[in-house]
Amino acid sequence: MEDYLEKATTLVEAMPYIKEFAGAVVVIKYGGAAMINETIKASVMEDIALMKLVGMKPVIVHGGGPEINQMLDSIGKKSEFRGGLRVTDEETVNIVEMVLAGKVNKSIVQLLQKQGITAAGLCGKDGDMLMCEKNMPNGEDIGFVGKIVKVNPDLIFTMLDAGFTPVIAPIGTDDLGQSYNINADFAAVHIAKALKARKLVFLTDVSGVLHDVKDPQSFIPEMGAKTAMQYLKDGTVSGGMIPKVTCCLEAIQGGVQHVHILDGRIEHCLLLEFFTARGIGTLIINDLTKKEEAV
Amino acid sequence: MEDYLEKATTLVEAMPYIKEFAGAVVVIKYGGAAMINETIKASVMEDIALMKLVGMKPVIVHGGGPEINQMLDSIGKKSEFRGGLRVTDEETVNIVEMVLAGKVNKSIVQLLQKQGITAAGLCGKDGDMLMCEKNMPNGEDIGFVGKIVKVNPDLIFTMLDAGFTPVIAPIGTDDLGQSYNINADFAAVHIAKALKARKLVFLTDVSGVLHDVKDPQSFIPEMGAKTAMQYLKDGTVSGGMIPKVTCCLEAIQGGVQHVHILDGRIEHCLLLEFFTARGIGTLIINDLTKKEEAV
Amino acid sequence: MEDYLEKATTLVEAMPYIKEFAGAVVVIKYGGAAMINETIKASVMEDIALMKLVGMKPVIVHGGGPEINQMLDSIGKKSEFRGGLRVTDEETVNIVEMVLAGKVNKSIVQLLQKQGITAAGLCGKDGDMLMCEKNMPNGEDIGFVGKIVKVNPDLIFTMLDAGFTPVIAPIGTDDLGQSYNINADFAAVHIAKALKARKLVFLTDVSGVLHDVKDPQSFIPEMGAKTAMQYLKDGTVSGGMIPKVTCCLEAIQGGVQHVHILDGRIEHCLLLEFFTARGIGTLIINDLTKKEEAV
Amino acid sequence: MEDYLEKATTLVEAMPYIKEFAGAVVVIKYGGAAMINETIKASVMEDIALMKLVGMKPVIVHGGGPEINQMLDSIGKKSEFRGGLRVTDEETVNIVEMVLAGKVNKSIVQLLQKQGITAAGLCGKDGDMLMCEKNMPNGEDIGFVGKIVKVNPDLIFTMLDAGFTPVIAPIGTDDLGQSYNINADFAAVHIAKALKARKLVFLTDVSGVLHDVKDPQSFIPEMGAKTAMQYLKDGTVSGGMIPKVTCCLEAIQGGVQHVHILDGRIEHCLLLEFFTARGIGTLIINDLTKKEEAV
Amino acid sequence: MEDYLEKATTLVEAMPYIKEFAGAVVVIKYGGAAMINETIKASVMEDIALMKLVGMKPVIVHGGGPEINQMLDSIGKKSEFRGGLRVTDEETVNIVEMVLAGKVNKSIVQLLQKQGITAAGLCGKDGDMLMCEKNMPNGEDIGFVGKIVKVNPDLIFTMLDAGFTPVIAPIGTDDLGQSYNINADFAAVHIAKALKARKLVFLTDVSGVLHDVKDPQSFIPEMGAKTAMQYLKDGTVSGGMIPKVTCCLEAIQGGVQHVHILDGRIEHCLLLEFFTARGIGTLIINDLTKKEEAV
Amino acid sequence: MEDYLEKATTLVEAMPYIKEFAGAVVVIKYGGAAMINETIKASVMEDIALMKLVGMKPVIVHGGGPEINQMLDSIGKKSEFRGGLRVTDEETVNIVEMVLAGKVNKSIVQLLQKQGITAAGLCGKDGDMLMCEKNMPNGEDIGFVGKIVKVNPDLIFTMLDAGFTPVIAPIGTDDLGQSYNINADFAAVHIAKALKARKLVFLTDVSGVLHDVKDPQSFIPEMGAKTAMQYLKDGTVSGGMIPKVTCCLEAIQGGVQHVHILDGRIEHCLLLEFFTARGIGTLIINDLTKKEEAV
Repeated sequence: MEDYLEKATTLVEAMPYIKEFAGAVVVIKYGGAAMINETIKASVMEDIALMKLVGMKPVIVHGGGPEINQMLDSIGKKSEFRGGLRVTDEETVNIVEMVLAGKVNKSIVQLLQKQGITAAGLCGKDGDMLMCEKNMPNGEDIGFVGKIVKVNPDLIFTMLDAGFTPVIAPIGTDDLGQSYNINADFAAVHIAKALKARKLVFLTDVSGVLHDVKDPQSFIPEMGAKTAMQYLKDGTVSGGMIPKVTCCLEAIQGGVQHVHILDGRIEHCLLLEFFTARGIGTLIINDLTKKEEAV
Repeated sequence: MEDYLEKATTLVEAMPYIKEFAGAVVVIKYGGAAMINETIKASVMEDIALMKLVGMKPVIVHGGGPEINQMLDSIGKKSEFRGGLRVTDEETVNIVEMVLAGKVNKSIVQLLQKQGITAAGLCGKDGDMLMCEKNMPNGEDIGFVGKIVKVNPDLIFTMLDAGFTPVIAPIGTDDLGQSYNINADFAAVHIAKALKARKLVFLTDVSGVLHDVKDPQSFIPEMGAKTAMQYLKDGTVSGGMIPKVTCCLEAIQGGVQHVHILDGRIEHCLLLEFFTARGIGTLIINDLTKKEEAV
Repeated sequence: MEDYLEKATTLVEAMPYIKEFAGAVVVIKYGGAAMINETIKASVMEDIALMKLVGMKPVIVHGGGPEINQMLDSIGKKSEFRGGLRVTDEETVNIVEMVLAGKVNKSIVQLLQKQGITAAGLCGKDGDMLMCEKNMPNGEDIGFVGKIVKVNPDLIFTMLDAGFTPVIAPIGTDDLGQSYNINADFAAVHIAKALKARKLVFLTDVSGVLHDVKDPQSFIPEMGAKTAMQYLKDGTVSGGMIPKVTCCLEAIQGGVQHVHILDGRIEHCLLLEFFTARGIGTLIINDLTKKEEAV
Repeated sequence: MEDYLEKATTLVEAMPYIKEFAGAVVVIKYGGAAMINETIKASVMEDIALMKLVGMKPVIVHGGGPEINQMLDSIGKKSEFRGGLRVTDEETVNIVEMVLAGKVNKSIVQLLQKQGITAAGLCGKDGDMLMCEKNMPNGEDIGFVGKIVKVNPDLIFTMLDAGFTPVIAPIGTDDLGQSYNINADFAAVHIAKALKARKLVFLTDVSGVLHDVKDPQSFIPEMGAKTAMQYLKDGTVSGGMIPKVTCCLEAIQGGVQHVHILDGRIEHCLLLEFFTARGIGTLIINDLTKKEEAV
Repeated sequence: MEDYLEKATTLVEAMPYIKEFAGAVVVIKYGGAAMINETIKASVMEDIALMKLVGMKPVIVHGGGPEINQMLDSIGKKSEFRGGLRVTDEETVNIVEMVLAGKVNKSIVQLLQKQGITAAGLCGKDGDMLMCEKNMPNGEDIGFVGKIVKVNPDLIFTMLDAGFTPVIAPIGTDDLGQSYNINADFAAVHIAKALKARKLVFLTDVSGVLHDVKDPQSFIPEMGAKTAMQYLKDGTVSGGMIPKVTCCLEAIQGGVQHVHILDGRIEHCLLLEFFTARGIGTLIINDLTKKEEAV
Repeated sequence: MEDYLEKATTLVEAMPYIKEFAGAVVVIKYGGAAMINETIKASVMEDIALMKLVGMKPVIVHGGGPEINQMLDSIGKKSEFRGGLRVTDEETVNIVEMVLAGKVNKSIVQLLQKQGITAAGLCGKDGDMLMCEKNMPNGEDIGFVGKIVKVNPDLIFTMLDAGFTPVIAPIGTDDLGQSYNINADFAAVHIAKALKARKLVFLTDVSGVLHDVKDPQSFIPEMGAKTAMQYLKDGTVSGGMIPKVTCCLEAIQGGVQHVHILDGRIEHCLLLEFFTARGIGTLIINDLTKKEEAV
């Protein structure tokens, strides 16, 4: 009986969150650690399905680096990197597109559907969703790496309205029909902005933001965007966390209300973050724009 | 962390039920033990609110015997009983209406709304919802005790469509505008039939149906309507459980899919019954009509 | 034949008013004299039903002082009055709620339905319709007498849209779920404002506003709100008429277009006021806000 | 005051009829005496406007014999008649169309609009509404006199749905685009059938059907269609009343519920027939088809 | 095969225009030369039908001078002209109305319907569409010649929304119900403005605007409204082209985007102007108001 | 000018087809010759865009054999064939999916969008669209070659309703989430049946069906399904045309009205077939099921 009461308590604890998030569009950047282990994969899919069932509107934006590397290897293609970015020639971008939009994307669709919801796999070329130009860091041409210049969200809204969960591969296009490889974090941020999403979630390989990166006790469960900006300036946020937090802030400046950085290696990390009182990751709250501006 | 996992597991366990019951109309007969204790009251209200939040459409039909007695006492009115039924003269039926529709009903509305959902208190006179004639057991006139002859469910559907949770006092009427006192169990059955409800739930003072009323081990968690009929015939169902099970079967014959008999004294009995794998009460399943006939 | 022509003439005379008021929300404060006599009651109900049939949207807000007194008497409870207001302790407010929401309200619903329209009885607790705080005249605590601080009109609009005529008992609530007794005139004014009603009607015990309260010839059939304000200042409006006219002006300042003060003792007073060329009461016309602001 | 009460009584008397006829499509054949006198014309228009305002959906089908004759005279054209029917050559049918669709039709539209409703003048060619073939009584070719073979009611329903009152000139057409002159009574019957009208009304020059045509006391205020058929057979209905009653019965066999024969010379004949208890004409009630078949 | 390719090329050439004009309201002033010759008539009707089929919303406003003259002749009525305008007494305006609204109008409806679309013939009296006052050039009263003071476009929109092609005779009315004869060019301009039409087309007897009226080589295929204004001022536009171009500019100032002057004597002039790259007439483009202001 | 007239004639010739096919769902099997040559590709895309613009609802189902072979080659994978079918192991089906759903599919989307319409690339896994089991000819297991057992058309209808042109790669799935390679012809037939498509078109490498495969003069432009069945039986249809015609007949038996076999190598073959009087391919007409059964 005691066990029963605990179950009931958990459900009751979830109630205010279910209510608050009903109808909320939630963009989930899915990649890295959370994509490799099969158990974790299944638990992420269960979580997304539950989010959908209680009325949220999840949108998945995924990466797929390891599968790309594997494919390039299998055809004996070597990648050159400059400043951490892969030089992406025509052949490479075609492989990237094929792997992300044809393999990774459809396999996520499949996994979601095994949880009892219907999904649809798209890439940024469908419906001219992600319009790009060449991303040239420091003016250097590194090939077909895309910088998003416009998002057409109609196709995503059509899916959400019809009850399908959109799964999006970060391949972009331009007016000439060229394909571009896009960083999945950036794609997620731009899509969240265009959808005026309530939440954006990054499933990462770390537990969240720490005051002191060497001290797990210094974990920050929640902060305002203004504080996050301050932490960027004063060096509290450092190393690999800088681009991630910068992404979070760009989304918030675009009208997103909540951005979560979660450890994607924890089973049911999404449920625990969204439906329990304490959460498990770092939540950055929009204290820049008024709530009315978001939907 | 282990604790977290248990929480997640509970939420995941609830998932298929949330999916199955989305949009389902569930009529809850609320009375007896579940109405007296304040802790239990609050837990029932929490459960109903959660049901609403995850997409079910609860409809509450309530009793209120103790409050009626208290009011009659306070004005010094004595009730006569015949065959267990209160002889209900004009003055009595007016007190009953006032107490049920004016006091008990509105206080349930209030309790629900404290859980963050909106409710609307109605009685069977509103919208000519419960049309009655005199219930005269064995042809004896015991006053304004109503037997339902027609249910107009429009007002209830209007409420459900607009997102309000209807709370209904079992007061009926007729073409002349006379008020009638109706047994709340019967009112719940008729309303469930008229709404083509997916589920009807009786919150009672017992744990459910037992093979042997003296042996708690003989508890029956689930049976088909055909079996229940057999148990009524062969005496397995006996005593005070006879009218309850008869009610269940009438609802099922009217197209209701599931009828639950729950112990309303257990905290969060509704959540435990609906959203956990084992449940806690007796579920009678419609194996008489095809599923397509219900909505 | 002549008789026929008179009938036809009456119908033709009503035509422009029927056209003008089609779709108009009309809040009717129903109480006092118009509620006691059975003939008058029936005639008011007929009038409201006809208003509904020709396309108006009546909303009834009722009082019920005599029934409250009678109930308090029957349980031997004495009321203390301060400054004309009943000191309302917990027990009293419960009786008031029970009598207004459970007895008077449902009997009006019944009477309307006998005229062939469908009605639904509500109180200010349903749908958190009338949110109150304690009304403390001169800072004195006289118990649970409510001052309306917010009106949630959703439930009323739901009823109107679905074709039900709402009948509302002036019982309010607050965030803690406390019940409050509200003056019916004030409740009608606030509801009319929240609904952006075209018309607000007070059924009273007087024929309307007089220049000279002793001279029936000095009756004022129609005046602008600006004039009414002037009359309040210069003492033309005096005595018991002051709070009534003050109510009228508050409604007008809130966007109501027409406020009528009618003698509720006249049979078919509503029809005569609305559908004949001369009318029978005093009409105060909104000359403060532009017509476009109202609906 | 007494006068007031009479007015109120008239309005109240009208109430059940207003309720019963809300939304009802009523086809009115307008012609003969009711079209000539200006006072009568105005009173018919007032009546139709009032019917519209209280929720009925009037559709006017008109004749215009005198205006046609006058126009033919003015161009010096003589008509030949065979068996009471005008031999209608190409030139004649063009004049008929021009007079009915261009003059009479638009003048009725104008008169209706002066009563504050919006109307639209059409003929049977618009929207291919009245498709005809040559009407050849006894196989004799008398020119472009049309027999209706198909009615396309879409345009009429479009008008009614948009709140315009359609006024229809009885000019038909065929697949080749030929114009036909159609008897207005027949046009009204076919249109009423195609619209599944609740009522069809003939405004005539007689008071209604009489048992004995010489005895005004023998007036029949109401009868079933079966009785009307019997009266046709046994000669009770005779002379000029035969084709009129035959029309009524054809409409009823096509699903119309009520057919009225009224004296169009009586002021406000439509209001008196529809909104007073006794009526003034002969009403033939459909006792052949079940009510459910009509709309 | 070559022939085939040409056909395909033509269809492909039409594609961008079909796309651009989908849903566009196009008012066509139809009169003069394009109305007399039967072959041309048929080709205009085919063009309008095709426009409708590919998603445009044509609205036809027609004249009919020759038919009016013929009718006046046949009844021996002589018209007096002052300053080029027909003095229009009561009898004349009635003939004009009858001929335009009853004969010409319905025959255009018929011709359109033979092309497989449905049409509805209206005049400016229907739905109080064209409200007029007396047009008195230089203060001189020349009878019932109308100057449009207000357009009620509801009836036209109703038709367009329901898929009927409206055909409108330029007869106006006023609050007293008087009929007026209106210049068809003016009627087309006012209707185009009230509909916020994308295009207005004049089918005329000339090929378009010329720099030098004697030199066909000086034809102007396209110009902005500002240029057209300049040409009016500097005399480039002269003679009979002045009132036509003035009409064009009034439409453009009212928000119409494109005004076309076409030679209605050329077969399929509408198709050639709208669906081929070069067009055949003069197009005046709105460079005064922003595109967003039009619909 | 003559040239102009020819253009107009072509547009007019297209008119009845545009009208007839408005709103019609047309499934196009796109593959083989029509996919290789860039000029032909562009012309097919132009045709599909025009079909969409004039109101048809095209759905593209594509193949992609050459690209698959090329990819398999590039990773050094050799395919074994049995009875003409590729033995498809796990690695092969993954390559097939990646190439078809990730490369060919998205490039068609891109080409369509360059013509000014919006498209969305899907495969049979999205929305559980194409549910399969193993296709085992003669009971032999040749790996993951799919036989369609169920089509869920919801996602396609969602796209069509929202105005996106669906492009579908013939990859199927089953309840376990296995991927299957499906013959594109079969996929097109099943999709056409599930959509109740008006038309199904096969773009092939032949001109159509011939009586005598060696005599181009014996070309059959149009025949009924009954005749086609006869030709299959009597050997008139032979060789590679047998499976194609069998596909056509299966679609027709499933309710498709028209099946076209076109030579995809002819520029603008779709326009010429659909919008010109003679057409260029073989049309098989459904003379088995009644037209009403299709949509």
